[in-house]
Amino acid sequence: MAEFDEPIERLIEYFRQLPSVGKKTAQRYAFYIIENGKEKAENFAKAILDVKEKVKLCKECGNYSVNEICPICQRRNKKLVCVVQEPKDIVSMEKIKSYDGVYHVLFGTISPLENRGPNDIRIKELLERVSKNGVEEVIMATNPDVEGEATAMYISKLLKPLGVKVTRLAQGIAMGSDIEFADEVTLERAMEQRQEI
Amino acid sequence: MAEFDEPIERLIEYFRQLPSVGKKTAQRYAFYIIENGKEKAENFAKAILDVKEKVKLCKECGNYSVNEICPICQRRNKKLVCVVQEPKDIVSMEKIKSYDGVYHVLFGTISPLENRGPNDIRIKELLERVSKNGVEEVIMATNPDVEGEATAMYISKLLKPLGVKVTRLAQGIAMGSDIEFADEVTLERAMEQRQEI
Repeated sequence: MAEFDEPIERLIEYFRQLPSVGKKTAQRYAFYIIENGKEKAENFAKAILDVKEKVKLCKECGNYSVNEICPICQRRNKKLVCVVQEPKDIVSMEKIKSYDGVYHVLFGTISPLENRGPNDIRIKELLERVSKNGVEEVIMATNPDVEGEATAMYISKLLKPLGVKVTRLAQGIAMGSDIEFADEVTLERAMEQRQEI
Repeated sequence: MAEFDEPIERLIEYFRQLPSVGKKTAQRYAFYIIENGKEKAENFAKAILDVKEKVKLCKECGNYSVNEICPICQRRNKKLVCVVQEPKDIVSMEKIKSYDGVYHVLFGTISPLENRGPNDIRIKELLERVSKNGVEEVIMATNPDVEGEATAMYISKLLKPLGVKVTRLAQGIAMGSDIEFADEVTLERAMEQRQEI
């Protein structure tokens, strides 16, 4: 005998597929749906379907957007492009209120281990944008890990012949963190890139 | 400007309403839906709707069920009834493989603070079941907190005149826990209810 009747088990199964959701959490979510109003559940289901129906990728930057061109690409400075791995990284970068450039989503990194080469991420589109829009600076904001670093290096080598300035987010100790707990690679970078005060 | 386009914001909002889900987690869930296949999203939405459509309360015990009478009530010993606060407590109790009785869900406790009296939880239904089925023992498995205790006491006073045995789950130190970290109320109970070995 299954622990729950079929429709409940099936809903738990779908909740479990969400990132970092275990059996117990999925069960709590399913019970929430059961215990709350029918209209709320219907609206929830509709919200899932609407997102799949309406959300596309911005033709310029690759970010999620309901329009062909996302609001950021429509309004901001196209001469400054920040390259990120995933759309969710844009959410983080947007915390920097002063940044008025646009973004370019790669959708991944070059990763020989996962069989992703330069043609599997949106590098060609980046080169086209840089040529087409007369971009002045490309900021590489890929993750500071092996694959992110390698991807940033690879792209910068392709960009430099186009006469565009390529920069990388500074690496070092995080604000509010504790030097005691910083790892040695981070500390080494912080030392290398130390600034006069 | 909202952080995301409307359909994405709306989906995030629905995920946020799930228990213990914050903004960041809701965002990850919404991105998961966006990033995965359309068919999967459609099945997810359907699972939500199906649960609302098909899942009812078992007419005997109050547990969630697609049938009028749930599988537990159909097959097990009706002379032994375990009283719980919520359907999710049945899931926990069912870990005790040896228990072959049925359950009775109260859907809450008596709580003057939250304005819930004896008529707001399923006490009348319990008394009817006990009379109708010739129940021999009622095990009170409400939570070991003030409201759960008070509710167990209240119900046991109503049941005793019916000549039924009423028991309560033993209270004491949890298996595998550390006496060092046990609170004083738990230790006092464990001392009171100590067993000869």
